[in-house]
Amino acid sequence: MKVVIIGGVAGGATAAARLRRLDENAQIIVLERSGYVSYANCGLPYYIGGTIQNEKALTLQTPESFKRRFNVDVRVQNEVLAIRPEQKSVTVRRLSDGTTYEESYDKLILSPGAKPVRPNLPGINHERIFTLRSVEDTFRIHRFVEENAPKRAVVVGGGFIGLEMAENLTHLGLSVTVVERLNQVMSPIDYDMACGVHAYLKDKGVSLFLGSSVEGFEPADDGLRTILDKGRTLTSDMVILAIGVTPETHLAKEAGLRLGQRGSIAVNDRMETSIPDIYAVGDAVEVRHFVTGSETLIPLAGPANKQGRIAADNICGRDSRYKGSQGSSVLKLFDMTVAATGINEDAAKKAGIEYDKVITFTASHATYYPGASNMTVKTLFDPQSGKVLGAQIVGFEGVDKRIDVLATAIRAGMTVYDLEELELSYAPPYSSAKDPVNMAGFAAVNVLDGTVKQYHWHDVPALPKDGSVTLLDTRTDEEYARGHIDGTLHIPVDVLREHLSELDPSKPVYVNCQSGLRSYIACRILSGHGYDCYNLSGGWRFYDLVKQ
Amino acid sequence: MKVVIIGGVAGGATAAARLRRLDENAQIIVLERSGYVSYANCGLPYYIGGTIQNEKALTLQTPESFKRRFNVDVRVQNEVLAIRPEQKSVTVRRLSDGTTYEESYDKLILSPGAKPVRPNLPGINHERIFTLRSVEDTFRIHRFVEENAPKRAVVVGGGFIGLEMAENLTHLGLSVTVVERLNQVMSPIDYDMACGVHAYLKDKGVSLFLGSSVEGFEPADDGLRTILDKGRTLTSDMVILAIGVTPETHLAKEAGLRLGQRGSIAVNDRMETSIPDIYAVGDAVEVRHFVTGSETLIPLAGPANKQGRIAADNICGRDSRYKGSQGSSVLKLFDMTVAATGINEDAAKKAGIEYDKVITFTASHATYYPGASNMTVKTLFDPQSGKVLGAQIVGFEGVDKRIDVLATAIRAGMTVYDLEELELSYAPPYSSAKDPVNMAGFAAVNVLDGTVKQYHWHDVPALPKDGSVTLLDTRTDEEYARGHIDGTLHIPVDVLREHLSELDPSKPVYVNCQSGLRSYIACRILSGHGYDCYNLSGGWRFYDLVKQ
Ligand SMILES: Cc1cc2nc3c(=O)[nH]c(=O)nc-3n(C[C@H](O)[C@H](O)[C@H](O)COP(=O)(O)OP(=O)(O)OC[C@H]3O[C@@H](n4cnc5c(N)ncnc54)[C@H](O)[C@@H]3O)c2cc1C
Ligand SMILES: Cc1cc2nc3c(=O)[nH]c(=O)nc-3n(C[C@H](O)[C@H](O)[C@H](O)COP(=O)(O)OP(=O)(O)OC[C@H]3O[C@@H](n4cnc5c(N)ncnc54)[C@H](O)[C@@H]3O)c2cc1C
Ligand SMILES: CC(C)(COP(=O)(O)OP(=O)(O)OC[C@H]1O[C@@H](n2cnc3c(N)ncnc32)[C@H](O)[C@@H]1OP(=O)(O)O)[C@@H](O)C(=O)NCCC(=O)NCCS
Ligand SMILES: CC(C)(COP(=O)(O)OP(=O)(O)OC[C@H]1O[C@@H](n2cnc3c(N)ncnc32)[C@H](O)[C@@H]1OP(=O)(O)O)[C@@H](O)C(=O)NCCC(=O)NCCS
Repeated sequence: MKVVIIGGVAGGATAAARLRRLDENAQIIVLERSGYVSYANCGLPYYIGGTIQNEKALTLQTPESFKRRFNVDVRVQNEVLAIRPEQKSVTVRRLSDGTTYEESYDKLILSPGAKPVRPNLPGINHERIFTLRSVEDTFRIHRFVEENAPKRAVVVGGGFIGLEMAENLTHLGLSVTVVERLNQVMSPIDYDMACGVHAYLKDKGVSLFLGSSVEGFEPADDGLRTILDKGRTLTSDMVILAIGVTPETHLAKEAGLRLGQRGSIAVNDRMETSIPDIYAVGDAVEVRHFVTGSETLIPLAGPANKQGRIAADNICGRDSRYKGSQGSSVLKLFDMTVAATGINEDAAKKAGIEYDKVITFTASHATYYPGASNMTVKTLFDPQSGKVLGAQIVGFEGVDKRIDVLATAIRAGMTVYDLEELELSYAPPYSSAKDPVNMAGFAAVNVLDGTVKQYHWHDVPALPKDGSVTLLDTRTDEEYARGHIDGTLHIPVDVLREHLSELDPSKPVYVNCQSGLRSYIACRILSGHGYDCYNLSGGWRFYDLVKQ
Repeated sequence: MKVVIIGGVAGGATAAARLRRLDENAQIIVLERSGYVSYANCGLPYYIGGTIQNEKALTLQTPESFKRRFNVDVRVQNEVLAIRPEQKSVTVRRLSDGTTYEESYDKLILSPGAKPVRPNLPGINHERIFTLRSVEDTFRIHRFVEENAPKRAVVVGGGFIGLEMAENLTHLGLSVTVVERLNQVMSPIDYDMACGVHAYLKDKGVSLFLGSSVEGFEPADDGLRTILDKGRTLTSDMVILAIGVTPETHLAKEAGLRLGQRGSIAVNDRMETSIPDIYAVGDAVEVRHFVTGSETLIPLAGPANKQGRIAADNICGRDSRYKGSQGSSVLKLFDMTVAATGINEDAAKKAGIEYDKVITFTASHATYYPGASNMTVKTLFDPQSGKVLGAQIVGFEGVDKRIDVLATAIRAGMTVYDLEELELSYAPPYSSAKDPVNMAGFAAVNVLDGTVKQYHWHDVPALPKDGSVTLLDTRTDEEYARGHIDGTLHIPVDVLREHLSELDPSKPVYVNCQSGLRSYIACRILSGHGYDCYNLSGGWRFYDLVKQ
């Protein structure tokens, strides 16, 4: 059997390694356009920022090591120009000398990845505008920074790569401005959760232009001008363009493979394309969303690796199925961690999936043990069954742990009742006897079973101001004095029982505290005395962050 | 409704808080023998060691704050002397003045916890021998250390509390010796996994006497002598006795409640005891083991908290069930983390549960990003279905995360096939595209489906030495030179294909490398050439650690 693989990184290299482990006799050829295989795409920003100093660390394998260990014929700087399914061959160009050749295959795996989106804007080809995907791109940016000592950078795009670059360029001493077309960074999380990230970015000295489109670029005496809509401009010494990626699928298209969304390659759950003996994996393919069940693009390294392994399994006669992607992802942003899994509110709305949500704010570990910090957890669940649909967490320590627990719960089809019961490991340096994930479960079940009714920051503006409802703030005097929702009555939870007479029992009470915990207790007190009441999910803190 | 709760800490205080939230009108009385409620048992060792400096941090609530927030009548230094189920009352002694009174109840919750085992050994009452359970115990030890500036401590017992105390006393500058009756510390993990902990403890300057029983104590001129079996003695300035806990159930016993193992209180899944209207929770009760299904004792704070909440729910007319404990636990030991969930080999054997196991050694995050360290993961699974039965991890960064993911997987009834598929969040500072949990899944499935056969460190001594099998070490020259299994042939994996002629195809080959990964690849190469071969699970590294 002769297997040809196009693309030698996450999906392709993994497929090659697994293929060899399953079949010692197959002939395996990896064709890779760039000068490197098995490179650490995800580490590239950190090489630029200097956290990773050894450029050798960026490649996990070389063609030589791949040959030695796996007896795989890896050909870098070999670009596939065309796939000829009828002949079962590919046309390849040696980039070193421009010559081409045909390579036949019994089985073909496509793992060409995705390329940075580069819109056709005026001035887009200016030499100070960079995208980041390959090792070559990385060296280019690295060299530019070394040689030109830029002082100001504009990063277009507030997604993973944009923000990682913002952090790394800040580390290098540049003053960085992030421009984002949407009104938020990090689209895997909802706007309200992103607000905490916006505040943090500003705190770290990164300027943010949200809701701003880039309309073009022009040279400037002192660098490069980025032209935004509404006539604003930003002058900088360099621009990083990180507005997303688009599947690298012209080969697939020209070969007549069935395509999916946004030009991606359509595959079944065995990673087979529409043409026999051709498999495709990684950023280039359309996947089924594990939660919504609909087709989508989720360009991440974990799925690419898994899909590569599954394609190899199937080629070697096993039956291995990819059950979909759920978009588990995590970003380090200076000391902050932003993570998500499953669907967010936007995705739920688009998919027409009914959901309810709770926002909890819980310590990463026992508060009496030094170093704990709070994380904001938003959990989406099915309002009937309680099935967990998605989660987003913004915080510092321990965010990655909780998102992985929640990702596992979603995979298992668990409900918020199950989250209550999860027995997670506890010692003071690591968690609390009620872990943040348990806490999200408690809060959600209390909503599901009617123990408490809640309202959200976005409900506040619509609350009647005609005196027909009571707004109640249950925080301490100091907290209240630092800021509160207009028109709220102020009774700290610890004296609420004595002050009940001040609350009109015929009016619904909208209660808030700082995080939602004390106001939940207040709601239970009020309910016990016959009041109709509502708890502000996420509390004043979350409301205030979003409102800012 | 009048609810009386005996014990005001993890189970009791949580039950009280939840009761109040569910029933604003109930009369709730908490009777607590010690001078404190809602204290952080788990934080006590860190107060002694100075990591927690503020003694106020040790109590999450006071009787006053409990009254204000929850309208709960908390009576510290009130010890219950007897339960009278016929009268539905308890007899209480005020420890301040020794007077007693009767308190009636409609519902009674027992959460008296467990007390440190104090065997009846000669000299056991020496004033320099301490146990640690309450805040008072903590202050006693703290004061002793301040006033006497001890230089040497003996810690009897190598479990959680013993090792936490060993760490904290070391931080204070004491020279610490741990004495443990078993041949290993930390019984939630197996002997082979504990070997890594032993080596680390020695490295941290803690002396270990394993397999040593304490037979008594006697005063010595320069302190206190701990007498071990085999006539050895250890002289020190203080002794911490931490050889386990025993349920505090004399009240329950005297009241005629049905008891379980080791004098614990038997309860059903609603936390009801054998006598109507009496509930029991926490360290005092017997629980069903989530994995084995049999009754056991698992004295941990997470279960105690959950059970307290469940008892409160049921008392308030809800139907809430405790589905069992799985023993998820974690220990910080200097910079090391030791964690477990589900069952270990010992427990599987005792329960007569068939299992297979894999040992993997995987980086906490992408190795090209600074700061990664490896963790040893032992995963037990059902050899037919692949269901995950238990996991143990010893390592540094990210151990608590992986044990919690595995704990969630066990709760969900997941198999090792599911572990392969878990989509966990990945960015270089947090994990790898193949997370350690995925890796455990891959390795286990390869064993399950016959892709590789394995052998273990304990199989090595029994391997025939008559030349009928080949032992093959596939590491590099340097690694091999540093130590290897006697009688192994040495061929690095990367040149194995060229040296196949040196291996007799008629003999089974027992392959090893450092961690098990390269030897797995070697096994696949050998299998492809028709050899019958076996991979050393955990590799030379694990074998060598255990052998030492
Ligand atoms: C800067 C950066 C940071 C990232 N950070 C993360 C992260 O933290 N977490 C995460 O999950 N994901 C991250 N990703 C995404 C992750 O790298 C991708 O999801 C993953 O690499 C996709 O694997 P793939 O095999 O589909 O494509 P790639 O890994 O991109 O490999 C495709 C290869 O195919 C080659 N190729 C394309 N066309 C041809 C052709 N015609 N002939 C020959 N070769 C061809 C390309 O040169 C390329 O090397 C990051 C990506 C980048 C760029
Ligand atoms: C030093 C230490 C460290 C620990 N570390 C951890 C850890 O890291 N992780 C973990 O999960 N668990 C840990 N634990 C265990 C955890 O604290 C217990 O599992 C948990 O507290 C049990 O809760 P409980 O309510 O059953 O008992 P407790 O919390 O012990 O509360 C019982 C209370 O009842 C009172 N009482 C007993 N009898 C009577 C009576 N007759 N009348 C009135 N009052 C009475 C006692 O004074 C006591 O305050 C640790 C325990 C200790 C001592
Ligand atoms: C380097 C690369 C080729 C390695 O691929 P790989 O060999 O499949 O992956 P690993 O080295 O992690 O090894 C995993 C294999 O070892 C096995 N293994 C790991 N530890 C083991 C152990 N202790 N015992 C037995 N087997 C073990 C696993 O089961 C798996 O084998 P399988 O797939 O046959 O089941 C590939 O990961 C790569 O190119 N990565 C870089 C590109 C990339 O991923 N970029 C995006 C992220 S930055
Ligand atoms: C202090 C103590 C009395 C608090 O008990 P508690 O009020 O039940 O627990 P918490 O303060 O964590 O609050 C949890 C409650 O707040 C709710 N909650 C938490 N965050 C919330 C939010 N943002 N919005 C709404 N509700 C929230 C939870 O749903 C839960 O309520 P529920 O049980 O009615 O569902 C108890 O935990 C205790 O005594 N602890 C110390 C002893 C101990 O555990 N020792 C061993 C470990 S060291």
